[in-house]
Amino acid sequence: MTSAFPHRHLLGIAQLSAADIRLILDEAEGWLEFNRGPRRRLDRMAGLTQVNAFFENSTRTLLSFEMAGKKLGAEVVNMHVARSSVQKGESLADTAKTINAMRPDVFVMRHALDGAAAEVAALMDCPVVNAGDGRGEHPSQALLDALTIRRHFGRTEGLTVAICGDILHSRVARSNMLSLPRLGATVRAVGPAALLPDTLPAGIESYTDFEAGIAGADVVMILRIQRERMIAAVSEGLGDYHALYGLTRERLKGVPPHAVVMHPGPMNRGVEIDGDIADDPGRSLILQQVEAGVAVRMACLDLLTRRA
Amino acid sequence: MTSAFPHRHLLGIAQLSAADIRLILDEAEGWLEFNRGPRRRLDRMAGLTQVNAFFENSTRTLLSFEMAGKKLGAEVVNMHVARSSVQKGESLADTAKTINAMRPDVFVMRHALDGAAAEVAALMDCPVVNAGDGRGEHPSQALLDALTIRRHFGRTEGLTVAICGDILHSRVARSNMLSLPRLGATVRAVGPAALLPDTLPAGIESYTDFEAGIAGADVVMILRIQRERMIAAVSEGLGDYHALYGLTRERLKGVPPHAVVMHPGPMNRGVEIDGDIADDPGRSLILQQVEAGVAVRMACLDLLTRRA
Amino acid sequence: MTSAFPHRHLLGIAQLSAADIRLILDEAEGWLEFNRGPRRRLDRMAGLTQVNAFFENSTRTLLSFEMAGKKLGAEVVNMHVARSSVQKGESLADTAKTINAMRPDVFVMRHALDGAAAEVAALMDCPVVNAGDGRGEHPSQALLDALTIRRHFGRTEGLTVAICGDILHSRVARSNMLSLPRLGATVRAVGPAALLPDTLPAGIESYTDFEAGIAGADVVMILRIQRERMIAAVSEGLGDYHALYGLTRERLKGVPPHAVVMHPGPMNRGVEIDGDIADDPGRSLILQQVEAGVAVRMACLDLLTRRA
Repeated sequence: MTSAFPHRHLLGIAQLSAADIRLILDEAEGWLEFNRGPRRRLDRMAGLTQVNAFFENSTRTLLSFEMAGKKLGAEVVNMHVARSSVQKGESLADTAKTINAMRPDVFVMRHALDGAAAEVAALMDCPVVNAGDGRGEHPSQALLDALTIRRHFGRTEGLTVAICGDILHSRVARSNMLSLPRLGATVRAVGPAALLPDTLPAGIESYTDFEAGIAGADVVMILRIQRERMIAAVSEGLGDYHALYGLTRERLKGVPPHAVVMHPGPMNRGVEIDGDIADDPGRSLILQQVEAGVAVRMACLDLLTRRA
Repeated sequence: MTSAFPHRHLLGIAQLSAADIRLILDEAEGWLEFNRGPRRRLDRMAGLTQVNAFFENSTRTLLSFEMAGKKLGAEVVNMHVARSSVQKGESLADTAKTINAMRPDVFVMRHALDGAAAEVAALMDCPVVNAGDGRGEHPSQALLDALTIRRHFGRTEGLTVAICGDILHSRVARSNMLSLPRLGATVRAVGPAALLPDTLPAGIESYTDFEAGIAGADVVMILRIQRERMIAAVSEGLGDYHALYGLTRERLKGVPPHAVVMHPGPMNRGVEIDGDIADDPGRSLILQQVEAGVAVRMACLDLLTRRA
Repeated sequence: MTSAFPHRHLLGIAQLSAADIRLILDEAEGWLEFNRGPRRRLDRMAGLTQVNAFFENSTRTLLSFEMAGKKLGAEVVNMHVARSSVQKGESLADTAKTINAMRPDVFVMRHALDGAAAEVAALMDCPVVNAGDGRGEHPSQALLDALTIRRHFGRTEGLTVAICGDILHSRVARSNMLSLPRLGATVRAVGPAALLPDTLPAGIESYTDFEAGIAGADVVMILRIQRERMIAAVSEGLGDYHALYGLTRERLKGVPPHAVVMHPGPMNRGVEIDGDIADDPGRSLILQQVEAGVAVRMACLDLLTRRA
């Protein structure tokens, strides 16, 4: 018997216990196998309407949530909010209340402001899934990362994960720094001092030296460099990002042979990661992350909308 | 036994009798209750293709029509016409004939030109729903407004509805000025002289004094102010719109305690309506309008595509 | 018993035998009749996910593929790649591998680069349908053109088809110059010398004189003139395109009374074709082409995803 998921929304890893995370991962394992098997139509979310509102553009995350919902049999509606009432000056709260009045069954949203998903969740009668809020959280990314690691190593306990790059601005880093320790992994934050937050969650060690930061790690998780932010960072005297923090074959010599490389995508090849590492099937779990993403989102959507 | 809907298209309220309107509202009542109940998949429009072509951007109306069609089991396809052949210089008639050749089962369209929906309807073999044509009509909005009023008061007959704002440019006003009198309500058009049409439908009284216009009204229906038009209006010497025509708590003292406030959305809080009025559950029917919108559109789509 | 389609992808007519083309056309005939009949929901692609990725904007082709997939019961997901990771600098190969990791069941793509579909097909585990690649091929257009001709004349063998316009830059011309000869038709390429390729497929005759090129033809296939390219052509001394190469009633006197006119759309009326010819039901097969398009795409999607 599956234990119930005790939360109404999925706003962040911050609200989840280790047991909550494990429940999602266990369910996602099943969906991942389902997605590899012969196709059949599901009725899990039949008659339910999933509204995706991406106030920030995102192709891959939107695609992943849309495929997840449709595979479960939901009616999926994408709001094109970049071209929307929001542009007409409507507040986020008014947009949320308006959508709520249309009685959707689950609401997936991405927004440029920290806390946007929580603000919306307080106004809606249906579950809200945070698909990224500013520098806040990106819980489904952290969950798919955890699933990918757990499937590869058979466990998460006792592993060392080095998260490398622009930690300060990354909601991916933030959610992973919350989830992985709960699953028994040791997490390091590795990046230029200007891109490390002043305070880190308990137990996270920070490194400004890239080689030291990844030495002995089981997982090297490279963050995407935002080109516009990189330009600002360079102007702050960081010099050439690739020279200092790009993951190269040379630098990878400092990690154990069994260590793997992850990246949330989309990659800037030759900037934060060299292409041959990304393409090395013995090292890279990048495509496994993408596959796990659909499964994790199916698990989240299904758990949140499960009917008695 | 439900009487049949005697029209092939829904182009405007102008073509509908009081009986036609009441049929739609009666059906919509049923859909509204359905939408509040336990979810189940419907087959009413199974195998039917609904094409939404919004030549003018609109998030909420498109979302409402899309949810309505999907709830009824239709395959819903959104044409992204802002980025389309239309930009390549194709005429509206050619676009219509092209879509018609793909044999959709219902065509929902919004367009910046008056009469666009009627032009298209003459070229198509399937029902056409006008989701707004220039300064022409917006019949589904007027129908959802009527449903909202009828549900709140238990009737429309004998009520006084004051429509306030830019009457001249508003297809919402125009459709409501046609529908509400047919349902036995008295309608007033309230706005600056420059924003009132030279001629109004029979029986509609016009007011340029806001307080006088809403005095004694059962419903104060505030129109959305188009920022670009407001700027023009101000330049014509209208001064500060909010000072003259914004709905404030102070001005609301002039209406009976039972009077309600409506707005088609999206709102400009602090411009045409004060936020605390919009949020007052004892006064505002704004979110009920949104909910009624999905139900009314389900009724329209279902009636127009009903198979023998 | 239907013979199986021996290809994993639909990249171009170049890879198809006459028997392959006839198989698709035969199946499409059935779908065309199905689409004219009473509506019913199909399960042919139930549980299958079709991803449409149009890196070049296209309304009508995207709409046609989307309707085709939905009619077959597929879950159809449109990637909005104009606003996507691609803009963030991701390579086409990385985009393809990412989508592949989400395990779609068929991938329909349009791209501005020649060979883009073939590049993607080599990276994906599912069938890839080329919906247009640069100046390469547009196979579904050629197939719908062949179906339209075959339905009108009852055959393709022995017919003469004059393709007129910017042959050099047209993937529609290219695919038709490959398919029609395989079906026994004679093909002429008619256009300004500057817009004719240096080499043509075997058996294609070229004409720079418009009247001579269409004389005696059974089918006059007018290509769309790209306005931006036309401007360049004019600057190369071609003068007024319409005066030299526009299809007028006067020019049409040079073809037999039974000859028909085709155009892939969207049309520039008064440029490459006069409006009254396009609208002449005795001459124009333009809307039949659109109808055939949905049927041909259903045939292709169904054949490529058919399960044992």
